Amino acid sequence: MTGRLYGIGVGPGDPELITLKAKKILERVPVICYPRSSADRESVALRIVADLVMGSQGDRERLELVFPMTRDRVVLEKAWSEAAAQVAGRLKDGRDVAFITLGDASVYSTFSYLASRVAALAPEAGLEVIPGVPSFVAGAAAAGIPLALGGESLAVIPAIDDLDQVARALEDYDNIVLMKVNRRFESLLRLLDRLKLKDKTVALSRIGSGDQKICTDLEELSGTQVDYLTVLLVRKGERP
Amino acid sequence: MTGRLYGIGVGPGDPELITLKAKKILERVPVICYPRSSADRESVALRIVADLVMGSQGDRERLELVFPMTRDRVVLEKAWSEAAAQVAGRLKDGRDVAFITLGDASVYSTFSYLASRVAALAPEAGLEVIPGVPSFVAGAAAAGIPLALGGESLAVIPAIDDLDQVARALEDYDNIVLMKVNRRFESLLRLLDRLKLKDKTVALSRIGSGDQKICTDLEELSGTQVDYLTVLLVRKGERP
Repeated sequence: MTGRLYGIGVGPGDPELITLKAKKILERVPVICYPRSSADRESVALRIVADLVMGSQGDRERLELVFPMTRDRVVLEKAWSEAAAQVAGRLKDGRDVAFITLGDASVYSTFSYLASRVAALAPEAGLEVIPGVPSFVAGAAAAGIPLALGGESLAVIPAIDDLDQVARALEDYDNIVLMKVNRRFESLLRLLDRLKLKDKTVALSRIGSGDQKICTDLEELSGTQVDYLTVLLVRKGERP
Repeated sequence: MTGRLYGIGVGPGDPELITLKAKKILERVPVICYPRSSADRESVALRIVADLVMGSQGDRERLELVFPMTRDRVVLEKAWSEAAAQVAGRLKDGRDVAFITLGDASVYSTFSYLASRVAALAPEAGLEVIPGVPSFVAGAAAAGIPLALGGESLAVIPAIDDLDQVARALEDYDNIVLMKVNRRFESLLRLLDRLKLKDKTVALSRIGSGDQKICTDLEELSGTQVDYLTVLLVRKGERP
């Protein structure tokens, strides 16, 4: 019997914010695999489930998959293929594998890249995605800000290159979530200021973890090294 | 001691998709309150947590709050105020109250309306939002479709009135989630067809419940009564 691959969203950081289903699977699968962006950076997802994984009995394998932080397609493709081969090997041995991912497995997760390559190598393996609480959803809860109400619209945009798209979203949408803002923070701050949205924006970082920060005065972050897990929430409407 | 109000997202439908934190709170709070859109419609949120709430010991109150399905502000304001008064009374008696909501409490939930009115009546009461898995996030997991990858953008829009906004989102965004599509389904189908996006759209209804449906051929739904909890997921990019 070929094993089953689970893509498990483990939520934003608080180990209590994983789902009952995720917990149940993580407590029984023989292989837990997790992404790491480079060898010297701790896996945030692994830290979230550490107690679940450690506390359970038996020989469980922890398989670390290193994905370099690059946009070079060749380098990435090689990393995906190597990771997929490792996972497919274990599935073919009849072991279930759980791939854990911060937040949710469908929202900016590396899981999709892995899953498609595993499916090519082990087409007979089962595949199941267990959804989780995305970081920006938990961020809204922590800040007490609705992400969307009634007929309102919501845009979620990684602020990597094209700030024109961010500017259009800030004009067209009722609520805007800006991800990956750390490298463009100063430009975003000026853009928000120009559109008179600075006071309607909250910066959230490391939501659900011990060092969670909610910042309502964005100017405080100007000139500082903004955390790479920071998200900006812009809500134009009143809080009801 | 004044009680604490919890806004709890109970996930999309599967009782296993609630978080550990939500479960813990629901098992101990003396008052569970839940929204109902009219007296003859069962509360979906209550059904999700039924086993948790029933299984636990002691006298627990179940408080049903009826919110009419209308956009009449006067009628709605009256319903919110009455509901808030009931909740505030219990908090002032020192009892904690959990308001349960389908999906997540910040994503198109009635919780925000209630919370602000409760805060006005019982400003000394504590307030905490426990995030959950939004329905559209669970839908993407069930369908095996990424909601957003890498630098992609995501728009979430209720398709209530303004299909111009939907059309612009379908042109500008990489991934589009259309909510509340049941009344405008035929118009949306024609719009998706015109933009050559019909084949890139999946219809999801009652995700995570026993009668979950994933439909990849939208034409099959044409002429039928589309469920009011149906969501359309449009993904332009390839599945990796």
